[in-house]
Amino acid sequence: MKEANFSFFHRNILPSAGGRALPDGKELNMTAEILSVGTELLLGNIVDTNAAFLSQELAGLGVSVFRQTTVGDNHKRLFCALSNAFENADMVVISGGLGPTQDDITKAVAAEYFGLELVLHQESLRRAKARFAGRERPENIERNAIIPEGSHVLQNDNGTAPGVVLEGKSAKTLILLPGPPHEMMPMFTNYVIPFLREKSGEVFISRTLKIIGLGESKVESMLDDLITAQTNPTIAPYAKVGDVHVRLTASAENEAAAEALINPLSAEIHSRLAPHIYSSDGSTLPEVVIKLLKTQNHTLAIAESCTGGLIMSELVSVPGCSSVILEGLCTYSNESKTVRLGVDANLIRMYGAVSAEVAAAMAENIAKTSGATIGISTTGVAGPDGGTPDKPVGLVYIGLCINGKTETAKLNLVGSRNTVRIRASSQALDILRRQLECFL
Amino acid sequence: MKEANFSFFHRNILPSAGGRALPDGKELNMTAEILSVGTELLLGNIVDTNAAFLSQELAGLGVSVFRQTTVGDNHKRLFCALSNAFENADMVVISGGLGPTQDDITKAVAAEYFGLELVLHQESLRRAKARFAGRERPENIERNAIIPEGSHVLQNDNGTAPGVVLEGKSAKTLILLPGPPHEMMPMFTNYVIPFLREKSGEVFISRTLKIIGLGESKVESMLDDLITAQTNPTIAPYAKVGDVHVRLTASAENEAAAEALINPLSAEIHSRLAPHIYSSDGSTLPEVVIKLLKTQNHTLAIAESCTGGLIMSELVSVPGCSSVILEGLCTYSNESKTVRLGVDANLIRMYGAVSAEVAAAMAENIAKTSGATIGISTTGVAGPDGGTPDKPVGLVYIGLCINGKTETAKLNLVGSRNTVRIRASSQALDILRRQLECFL
Repeated sequence: MKEANFSFFHRNILPSAGGRALPDGKELNMTAEILSVGTELLLGNIVDTNAAFLSQELAGLGVSVFRQTTVGDNHKRLFCALSNAFENADMVVISGGLGPTQDDITKAVAAEYFGLELVLHQESLRRAKARFAGRERPENIERNAIIPEGSHVLQNDNGTAPGVVLEGKSAKTLILLPGPPHEMMPMFTNYVIPFLREKSGEVFISRTLKIIGLGESKVESMLDDLITAQTNPTIAPYAKVGDVHVRLTASAENEAAAEALINPLSAEIHSRLAPHIYSSDGSTLPEVVIKLLKTQNHTLAIAESCTGGLIMSELVSVPGCSSVILEGLCTYSNESKTVRLGVDANLIRMYGAVSAEVAAAMAENIAKTSGATIGISTTGVAGPDGGTPDKPVGLVYIGLCINGKTETAKLNLVGSRNTVRIRASSQALDILRRQLECFL
Repeated sequence: MKEANFSFFHRNILPSAGGRALPDGKELNMTAEILSVGTELLLGNIVDTNAAFLSQELAGLGVSVFRQTTVGDNHKRLFCALSNAFENADMVVISGGLGPTQDDITKAVAAEYFGLELVLHQESLRRAKARFAGRERPENIERNAIIPEGSHVLQNDNGTAPGVVLEGKSAKTLILLPGPPHEMMPMFTNYVIPFLREKSGEVFISRTLKIIGLGESKVESMLDDLITAQTNPTIAPYAKVGDVHVRLTASAENEAAAEALINPLSAEIHSRLAPHIYSSDGSTLPEVVIKLLKTQNHTLAIAESCTGGLIMSELVSVPGCSSVILEGLCTYSNESKTVRLGVDANLIRMYGAVSAEVAAAMAENIAKTSGATIGISTTGVAGPDGGTPDKPVGLVYIGLCINGKTETAKLNLVGSRNTVRIRASSQALDILRRQLECFL
């Protein structure tokens, strides 16, 4: 998640449909409502990820979202939802319904609400036509470039329909964004934030500390006094799958002053929670691991059993990983462990495939035979079948061999087959991270 | 996604806060609103997957959802949202806010709205206590078992707070469900659907045809006449990541009659779209592949380059895969391809690692050296770097060797690094599926 920073006050350049008046130019503790438009959302055909993205971005900017509403492609219902939203919110952000078909009604509804005419925006039309250069151009391409008169236009770098910002007389701001997330998210980041920042009096800065190996309630209790005492920066912990993120948000007159507020608090949290904090710059765990491997001139090979390719897949998702990731083996069968990886068949017979001994041999052998400086391995019972009283579902061993020195870890994980696999992968990557950080 | 089938009329057993009256016992074309409750949703900390699940389930039951609303843990705002919802909807489904903390206000708001007292439900308290047998019991455990008097209680098999159904005088139905998806979804499937089915006059049955290799607009145009002409069953196509699903929903007086309506339509769609249809019983593509492998007594080994463990990981997510999946190699480096997999280094020098020749050698060698009857391979340029005019980002070769006979496929995929990897994995699995289905 990108970190954003700004705040804003209001210019009043356009007529408004009314609502409670706020003094011109006053800095606001703004409230916002998010409207998602699309019948496919009401049918449950797609999950609305836009609302969460926009809520998180707005929260990071100090804007309180007090309601999210989803309506279909229906003029009357959208108009009602918009009127209703402005009864309580200073700002309404709508995503969806900007396209060229009859179903795309958002701009018409917005124009009606603000009492504006719809006009053709030539630059947007030119851009839309350019996107279809050399291809068959849709008949209704002009409809993409229709906007309410006087709008501030937000360029769409990933589609044909531009977004717009409308500002009403009574400190009411309406932002219309396209529905597809790959169009909406870059537009918000690249054009909405700078547009709003231009009016800013105060700057907001956020920093997210990413934590692994501690639950949300544990993190909260360890930071309880800070969470209660702090108002600037604010501290907001929240649970992710397998992780906890703690977001620090400071407001100040400029970026340096906001950073100066965040730094000592971040240091205090580090002193309490390190080594559980793996990132404070937005990096993911695989990104952190790849960076550590590169910095320390290591190469890595992976031997997976129960995780079945997940660790490899996570690491390969990082661009540029190929300089440090040599290969991965998913030695799912016992035969594969012995023939392909050279694990002693007697070891498997004596201790079982799910054992610290086999995890160690897998890590050592994958490092040795691939020529990597580091080998990492997993072997466990992912379930739902295959558990025994001695070796229940969720039992996973991790092997780690760095420069010929091998250690193992034993995990008892809970959850479904795939939860066990995901947690085992994260834990394996975290064990590797911690080892590498000791060498820093 | 589970397929559900039922419809319902209304009994009127509880007082209601008013609204338009509908005759007792009349079968309704119902409208519903979904309310999601939770401040963490408004902060964007979590994505609301409940609304999409509930919308899809309700659509499959013939219930129209006309709005989804999300509010925070705020008594006044939830009360307003609930009142507002019942102005238009016959049924309101709320998820979230059923837990034991001060933030969990949903049951209190519902009781106030219907003019009911909150009472302790002994059976729910007993069940909640049983969940904490042998562990420290939370102080406020009783709060889980508080319900509005006269509610129909929905047992929670995956948590401590039960759900409830309230039925108002004026054909208003309110359903309260817990927020965590792993509690909410089984409760809806196992208790809400049977509860509603008990009152049913008519039965609804749905069947989803899963399609790969055709875009949504292509599918729509190929079924256009059917979609326009059909009212029972209805046909609803919708796009998933990499797939298109076509959902057929029929209503009739009993299950057999509904099936009899669906069967000829399903056959007609099969005649138009096969072999693109990989499933009509809810199975995923990896599940279909694993089942085909088992049926035909095949074993599979996988050699991945650009997909980096994704194919293995998808297949290993299927319980019981270990009888047919022998091993996977992620030969990410050229050296790994030659040393580990035995691909001729001259082949890589002459044609490049990303070539049909290397894909074929990878598939042949992984089959031969693992002893599997089938070997499958991928090699390609996932990006964002590494593309050339000859071999651009998105170029992927698939190799497939079945009983010693090898074929290759060339793909030109678009999208980000991970989109290319995901599409390459799906295409590889689909190529394998089609080959195996030829032997049926």
